[in-house]
Order: sequence, then C-alpha cells, then structure tokens
Amino acid sequence: MAGWGWGWARAVRGLLLDVSGVLYDSGADGGAPIAGSAEAVRRIKASGLKLQLCTNETQATRADFVRKLRAMGFDVSVAEVTAPAPAACRLLQERGLRPHLLVHHDLVPEFAEIDKTNPNCVVLGDAAEHFTYANLNEAFRLLIGMEKPVLISLGKGRYYKETDGLKLDVGAYMKALEYACDIEAEVVGKPAKSFFESALAELGVPAEQAVMIGDDIVSDVGGAQQCGMRALQVRTGKYSRGSSGFMEVQFGNLNKHLGVPLPGPWAALVVFTVTTVGTGDGSTGRHSPQSAGVTQNILLPLGSAGEEDLASFKRE
Amino acid sequence: MAGWGWGWARAVRGLLLDVSGVLYDSGADGGAPIAGSAEAVRRIKASGLKLQLCTNETQATRADFVRKLRAMGFDVSVAEVTAPAPAACRLLQERGLRPHLLVHHDLVPEFAEIDKTNPNCVVLGDAAEHFTYANLNEAFRLLIGMEKPVLISLGKGRYYKETDGLKLDVGAYMKALEYACDIEAEVVGKPAKSFFESALAELGVPAEQAVMIGDDIVSDVGGAQQCGMRALQVRTGKYSRGSSGFMEVQFGNLNKHLGVPLPGPWAALVVFTVTTVGTGDGSTGRHSPQSAGVTQNILLPLGSAGEEDLASFKRE
Repeated sequence: MAGWGWGWARAVRGLLLDVSGVLYDSGADGGAPIAGSAEAVRRIKASGLKLQLCTNETQATRADFVRKLRAMGFDVSVAEVTAPAPAACRLLQERGLRPHLLVHHDLVPEFAEIDKTNPNCVVLGDAAEHFTYANLNEAFRLLIGMEKPVLISLGKGRYYKETDGLKLDVGAYMKALEYACDIEAEVVGKPAKSFFESALAELGVPAEQAVMIGDDIVSDVGGAQQCGMRALQVRTGKYSRGSSGFMEVQFGNLNKHLGVPLPGPWAALVVFTVTTVGTGDGSTGRHSPQSAGVTQNILLPLGSAGEEDLASFKRE
Repeated sequence: MAGWGWGWARAVRGLLLDVSGVLYDSGADGGAPIAGSAEAVRRIKASGLKLQLCTNETQATRADFVRKLRAMGFDVSVAEVTAPAPAACRLLQERGLRPHLLVHHDLVPEFAEIDKTNPNCVVLGDAAEHFTYANLNEAFRLLIGMEKPVLISLGKGRYYKETDGLKLDVGAYMKALEYACDIEAEVVGKPAKSFFESALAELGVPAEQAVMIGDDIVSDVGGAQQCGMRALQVRTGKYSRGSSGFMEVQFGNLNKHLGVPLPGPWAALVVFTVTTVGTGDGSTGRHSPQSAGVTQNILLPLGSAGEEDLASFKRE
C-alpha cells in the first residue's frame, strides 16, 4: 500500500461513507445527526466526488433508513446505500438457501422475495431487543439440527453507539451461535471483501481511487484495506469513547490555523476533501493545518504517518 | 494417564457425578429423572463408594436444587453438591470483587452475603429467559466501562438438554461478552481445575482414586482429566442426540449377557460399579459384557480403548 503522502489524494474520485457513528448516532428516539455531518455530505457532493453510503445497518429496510436520514437533513437516496440485506438476498438465491431470519422486524421486508419455508440456514442481523433467549435458542436448535449448519451474519460488529450509550451489535450474537454449534459464520456486510466490492461497483470507482471513512477499525478500516482501498477512521461514534476532550483541543487549533469555522468532528474530513479537489497541494509542509488535520483522522497503524508526524502534530 | 485396563478400578473410592443429563433432564416442568438413575445412586451408596454431585447448575440455589432432586427420588443432600455459585462467592470475597449479577433470579440468594454496590466485575450464570438483550447489554456496558474488565462465568457449557429439547448454556453468552469487550472470562465451575479440586476435597478422595461421570466431553470429561482423574462419558443428556437407537440395541445385548435387568442408560455405570466393588476382575476377557459395557461409556479419544476394542464390541 502506498504511503500517506498527499500526491495520491488528487486521484481520489469517490468516497465510501459508513453511516452510524459517522453521519449520525442511532437511538430508540430515532437517533441524532453528528454535528457538521450533513454539511460535510453536501460539500462532498458539491466537490464532484462520488459518494456511496456503505453501512452494516440491519435494523430497517434501505427505504426506511434513507427516509430517516433525509429527515435529519442528509441529501441521500436509496441507490446511494450499500447494505447487507440485499447482498444476503443475492447470496441466498445463488446458493438455493432458505433462511430462518433472526433479524430486526423492520428488516424483514427486504427478504420478501426469498423462500423461507423449511429453512436450511440461519440469517442473523442486528435484532437488538428481538435477541431474546427464546429467539436465539430457536436459531440455535435449527442450526444444531442441520447436517451442515449454515449461519450467515449481516456484519460482525462488536458494538455501536446510540444516543443513550453503547449497544451490543450482531457480532456478539454471531459468536454465541458459533460457539454453541462449533461452526464458523459467513459474514455478509463489512468487513467482507465481496461487500466492499459491491459498494465500489455501485460507486463506479476502482479501489485505488476510493477512500472508505468509518468509525470501526475492523469493519470499516481493516475491511477496506483488505480490498485495496485507503481508509480513514473518524473519531466520532464508537471511537469517541474517552477521547473527546483531546479532540476538542485539536479542532480548536485547526480552526485557528484555517481561519474558517469547521463543523465539529468533521473538520479533518472537510480539510481532506478540500485538499482532494485541488485547493492545495500540501506545499505548506508536513506540519501545515491540512496535513495535520488529515493525520488526525488516520489511526497510526494504518500508514506511513509515524511517531515523528504525531509528535510534530502534538507540539502545535 | 494410565490405560483402561481394570486393575486400577479396585482402587476407586469415590465418584463425582454430573447431574443434568446424567441423573435427570431439566425442564420448565421441573424436569424428569433419567430411567434407572435414582436406583444407580442408591446402588453406588450401598456399595460403600463415596459420592459427590459435581454440577454447573446455576438456575437455583443448592437447597432448592436438592429439594427438586429428592422429590424425584434421589437420596442426596446439600453437602453432597459442589456447584459454581458458592465457589464464585469464595473467589469474590478473596479478591474484594463486587459483582453485577447476570444470573437466574432463583440463584440470587446464593450471593446474599456479597457486597454488590458499585460493581467492579460481572458474574454470568445460566440466566436462560433472563438473557434479554437489555440485560446482556447492561452487563456489556458495565464491562466496557471498567478500566480492567473482570468477567466471571459460572461454567462455559455450550448447551444442555431439557425435557423439551436442547437449550443454550451460559458459555454462548460468555463468548458474546468476551467478543464484544475483547476480554477473556474467568470460568468458575467445570471444567476449571480449581472447581474439581474443591469437589474432590468435599468428596474426601484423591484424584487418582476418583472417577468423574458426565455427559459433556469438555466440561465433565476433559476437566476431570486435567485434574488427574479418570472420567466416563454417559450417552444420556446432550450426548444422546441421534444415538439413542444404537444405545438401546447395545444395552439389550448387555442385559442378555448379564442375565439381570439393568436400568436403561445406566447399565454401563452399574456394571462398572459392580466391577469396582469386587464382584469381578475382568478375567472373562476384553470382550466380556463387563469390559464391553464400560467401553461403551468411554469416548474413544480419551484413553487406550482403541479401534480394535470398538470393532470387537460392534461384532457382539
């Protein structure tokens, strides 16, 4: 993988954006947008970059999901959303699998066209409150009774952040069933390579010209890298636990350097997109606000941003 | 470990018995004894062998558990039961830990003496229907918020058999929390070595003179072997899935050879205990009903009973 100098940034033509923890924090109350994120989506689109939402959201159909995002002020359409359920439907049809669904009730309509009689596999989504003991045990009994148990998991996230705190994600329940049945689940959704490939196809941009932006180091960043993309980790969503104080200070410095108001935790991404569309080439040096800003959104293990860069950044 | 010749059997002075799947199958209806098991307990006691129940039962206090067993006809007392909750209480007190309990409501009285304010660990038991999403998420949030999360699991079983079918056990939920928090649980109960050592101390017999009998190859057989004991796996409980037809035929043969009525799935154990108390020395040869009967309860990977033994047995 290329280093994190900024020459490559001029070649970027499209962005894949995670949604929960990046655009908004979900919640029983419908969730709340993250400050600055609607404006960031608007700027990305205005810049001419292509944009596709790449989400493991499985608590609603894509149509309902987009309706909710639009109500929060995000200018997005169903065609701009790549989500696990449609990908799972393709896989089920290709392999002649008839699922028992352990998913959120609001997701069930996505499987309307799928034969669900006499199940020969289990599809697991983020069922949240529907993860009762009885429901999980029903899925377990079906699996343990199959000659070759097939468990398809819509993502494998550990947890996510809602407005009222952290919530267990589908991955925890996937592990429970894997252990009980001594099997390994097939993951549809991030970080599966095939899922990112679908998202790139829908974005219409090859991997080396796309960047994935998310809050999960495994599902978003790791998955995208496996697929040949660069990836940035934002410090909102699940990342923000315990680090928000530090971030506020840094964004304050950024704002001072740039002399323009930046929308909260999206500051670094906005700097990145501005750089990408040609307003600067990084010639102000590695300690410029631009490079400092982007460094802030790169987790150190990802690329060539090393100890020296971070030390310089911290001295500012 | 010594092989499975029968000279060692004369030295056996005590038995550790698993309960669920060996003495009875639990269930919402209170459960049902396994045919012949009450009679087997009676014979074991009459033979002069010491006996201790070694269970991962965590759906009731020991007092309630014993009451239920006695109502089914088992001659057992509270002192004859080694269970995880009292062992966990000792551990909590030794280490100054204050638990948040995610256990069956009926088990809570076992922790009456323990300080549960301002929790600094989570204790997980077989909560069954109390494993709601909200309850598991509450435990998750407490753990992820701890500087050094401590998760104590009362056993790590995958599943067990109730009268109406298989049920997910605490191990599945332990794995869910381990994955979500990226931690490793401490297991109190089988197969932990310290738990078997407690059971042996209560039995009053050293490991090399004791035999563990259970239906779980990991928690019962593996755990006991780690502790220097011999172990037998019965084919009732969770083992019986799909193999009961085969067993009935074999027991039929045994009965014919011995010329006495044997109590169902306990036949092999009864043969074993008869051998142990000195009514025979195995001199009738390796293909005798006695050795065949015991071989039937030994899973092949455990000891020196090899392919040849099994083949001979199958030819009978």
